[in-house]
Amino acid sequence: MGDLERRRSRGRERRRQRKTIPRVVSAKPLDNKLPLSEVLSEEGIKAIHQASMRLLQETGILIVDYPPAEETFRANGAKVENHLIKIDEDTLMHFVRQAPATFTQLARNPANNLPIGGRHIIFAPVYGPPFVGDLEQPRRQATLEDFHNFAKLTYLSQHLHHAGGTIVEPNDIPVPERHLDMLLAHITLSDKAFMGSVTHPNNARDTVAISEILFGADEIRENPATISLINASSPLRFDDRMFGALEVYARARQAVIVTPFIVAGAMSPSTLAATLAQQNAEALFGLAYAQMLNPGTPCVYGSFLSNIDMKSGSPCFGTPENALALYAGAQMARHYNLPYRSGGNFTASRIPDAQAGYESASTMWPTVQAGVNFVLHAAGWLEGGLIAGYEKFILDLEICGMMARFVNGIGLTDEDFAWDAFAEVGPGGHFLGAQHTMRHYETAYYQHTVFSMENYEKWTERGALNTYQRANAIWKRMLKEYEAPPLDEAIVEELQAFVDHRRTELQAGQPRTEWKR
Amino acid sequence: MGDLERRRSRGRERRRQRKTIPRVVSAKPLDNKLPLSEVLSEEGIKAIHQASMRLLQETGILIVDYPPAEETFRANGAKVENHLIKIDEDTLMHFVRQAPATFTQLARNPANNLPIGGRHIIFAPVYGPPFVGDLEQPRRQATLEDFHNFAKLTYLSQHLHHAGGTIVEPNDIPVPERHLDMLLAHITLSDKAFMGSVTHPNNARDTVAISEILFGADEIRENPATISLINASSPLRFDDRMFGALEVYARARQAVIVTPFIVAGAMSPSTLAATLAQQNAEALFGLAYAQMLNPGTPCVYGSFLSNIDMKSGSPCFGTPENALALYAGAQMARHYNLPYRSGGNFTASRIPDAQAGYESASTMWPTVQAGVNFVLHAAGWLEGGLIAGYEKFILDLEICGMMARFVNGIGLTDEDFAWDAFAEVGPGGHFLGAQHTMRHYETAYYQHTVFSMENYEKWTERGALNTYQRANAIWKRMLKEYEAPPLDEAIVEELQAFVDHRRTELQAGQPRTEWKR
Repeated sequence: MGDLERRRSRGRERRRQRKTIPRVVSAKPLDNKLPLSEVLSEEGIKAIHQASMRLLQETGILIVDYPPAEETFRANGAKVENHLIKIDEDTLMHFVRQAPATFTQLARNPANNLPIGGRHIIFAPVYGPPFVGDLEQPRRQATLEDFHNFAKLTYLSQHLHHAGGTIVEPNDIPVPERHLDMLLAHITLSDKAFMGSVTHPNNARDTVAISEILFGADEIRENPATISLINASSPLRFDDRMFGALEVYARARQAVIVTPFIVAGAMSPSTLAATLAQQNAEALFGLAYAQMLNPGTPCVYGSFLSNIDMKSGSPCFGTPENALALYAGAQMARHYNLPYRSGGNFTASRIPDAQAGYESASTMWPTVQAGVNFVLHAAGWLEGGLIAGYEKFILDLEICGMMARFVNGIGLTDEDFAWDAFAEVGPGGHFLGAQHTMRHYETAYYQHTVFSMENYEKWTERGALNTYQRANAIWKRMLKEYEAPPLDEAIVEELQAFVDHRRTELQAGQPRTEWKR
Repeated sequence: MGDLERRRSRGRERRRQRKTIPRVVSAKPLDNKLPLSEVLSEEGIKAIHQASMRLLQETGILIVDYPPAEETFRANGAKVENHLIKIDEDTLMHFVRQAPATFTQLARNPANNLPIGGRHIIFAPVYGPPFVGDLEQPRRQATLEDFHNFAKLTYLSQHLHHAGGTIVEPNDIPVPERHLDMLLAHITLSDKAFMGSVTHPNNARDTVAISEILFGADEIRENPATISLINASSPLRFDDRMFGALEVYARARQAVIVTPFIVAGAMSPSTLAATLAQQNAEALFGLAYAQMLNPGTPCVYGSFLSNIDMKSGSPCFGTPENALALYAGAQMARHYNLPYRSGGNFTASRIPDAQAGYESASTMWPTVQAGVNFVLHAAGWLEGGLIAGYEKFILDLEICGMMARFVNGIGLTDEDFAWDAFAEVGPGGHFLGAQHTMRHYETAYYQHTVFSMENYEKWTERGALNTYQRANAIWKRMLKEYEAPPLDEAIVEELQAFVDHRRTELQAGQPRTEWKR
């Protein structure tokens, strides 16, 4: 990092420049004022902790094709044999404890900076679908245009706080270059915080380089500019791609979400206790690795825990087992004083039908009541994450909006007790015209965007549209009305120059070189 | 009750006779092993209690056209002026405390007897819709045939514990006789516990008489054979119809659910704290009346609390305000050590589309996590309760089934920690074929009935049906396969004779006479 100094001074300049006036009202993260819901007793938490410690010490974690991690673990007191790492509780917990309980992720619009951890809940869109779907065509290959569309919809939504990462796979772009186009889109089409690439350690390096251009090299080391998804290759295994990316981010002090991706019954035992112990072992192992590389690296305890449908072999979503695991995971993360990532508007359904609604809400209620801090897949998820649905995205936003109201709880001021309304109306009366109602009616209740309360007659008169059809009109109108948030032309040029530089290298099959200005 | 003795001996005989072998596996009430979720602090509970005491003492409750209740309140220490009852905290709470914390409702199949209160959760079908809807015709007038159909579906479901009451309005039967046909249907088509009629005090008397035929006069006074829905005529008002029915039931020691039916913003102030205080005042007032009439009468603290949609004037369902009120109501009921009724699979949607799914699940999660004891409207509800949907009924059962799994929580035995599976499979392996998985796969996860986990290819191959369409085939098959549970011919004959007797009186416009055998 020889040019760090030069980048530092540019960073300060950039920081001033990105303080532009946003045209879209910033989405404020939820601040949960309610008691959290729990499914485990203190003894249950301890039992899962102890089981995971036993797994780490006796069964071990396999590291595939990544000797540097084996070296790091060995140097820090773990036993390493045949790529299998066995680590004792004291050693592991020493490192886990170095992860901060909360941190702030930067956004190019500082009003969109995000507090991660504590009582905050942050909603980010779906991540990773290779397909998109809409009312006209329920499933087709996603393109960069779709990525742009979803980035715009995310930017426009009051209910999503985070721009997300790979909202959809831009299949029309060559695989090695996709991360460049996605990062550029996140930065130019939105002013919300975004996620980094994990598809190759070099792509993580590109993410860091781009963040330095946007925020300054110093700034992103004070507060992370990116947060990235490091999945375990469950059971009890991490690979070179994920640990390679984790290493790049940890060294640059960028936030990582260490997430065991588990379909229970296949990638873990079928029982919840064992699955939770395995998840805990994997998450803490990845987190400890980040702390070994750079103590204090912001880390999130991640959980993506589904279970297999014994009939079809597919993963299930919105199930009671998923909800129990989600709650238990939150309790484990809190036990270690770590931010928690889980949940989303999950469904196995292929279209936004009733099943999609039931399953999505059946994940989001536990998500919010468990106190999940970072909610990936909060909007757009269909078919177990294979499809990003345009209408589903709009429908999910309604739930996100409701949750923002829910966590505010019940006001108990004198005004909330409406003494003047009772005096004015009295027994048997009607409150609709009361002074108190007039003062409150605009803000008293969550206002729906796509759900309709119309009675059957009105509804029929207006075409008897189901919610799927209503949502279709909404996303189309939003895209039509979209305007990009302003961004300094010099930054755009430098970002574009960097992307061109890397694209040239990638297309020529040349090794990655550092970006010099 | 001159013929009480004679009926007593018959009662014992009946009790023996109804111990028939059920052909359908009994639905076991949920026994919630999880910590309950809360939204109010202890101070919040106290503030709402105090506000409701102030309403009862200073604003008062209006009793419409029912002087006997005014007399009862006056005799028990309340101030009565112009039909307005004002009662102080000590007097009211003296009576509230006499209601039992838990009780058992009888079913004609004793395996279906229901514990009401404590940690139990009981699901009953939708109550009251004048319309029915299905895939072919989203809304039409309900008939007695529809009532029979829903009674059969309820009987067949493993996930509904209670037969319910007015599942749909049998509009093809004259209003004064409907209760007779509905009671007869509940008893002959099902062997689950049922609800009583509240449409006229005489109909409540008929309900009691029919219960005496079925169970015996003594038996129903030991444990109630019916539970009936007494709604307040909010705000702060009860009428002769409801208080008349309540009086009949209380004197016969039959259970009542005292439920303020509130659409906040219209029938209460728009703010939640005031609405909860009003609800609390109304519920406790009705409960206290039952205790004044017959101390120890089984009572349930009821809540039906929606809020008005300021755009359409319709009530909203599945909203964050509804959820908050539902949780808070549960805390109030627990504060008084009373069973609680609330929740259900609510939606404002007219068909089982995505909105219906989101809204229903958004009510059922709070319902279960709040610890609601008696869940009316757990299946079939559409359009704010105006439509009983056949497909919606099937879809809601899926959620009820999932909840039964959810409340069992997470097992933490050695077997649950699957040590042999980890030893057999190891890091990077696959658990699907493991011995431990073989032992558990049949019971490990909730098995779906109507939701489908199929991938897009399979789903398309099988006709790309949405959940609405899949549910259609299921209820039709269930009705085809239905067989009535056996019932002693002598009881059927006596029930039929009673119904004929009352029908003759009603059709002739004659006063009600007691049933003599």
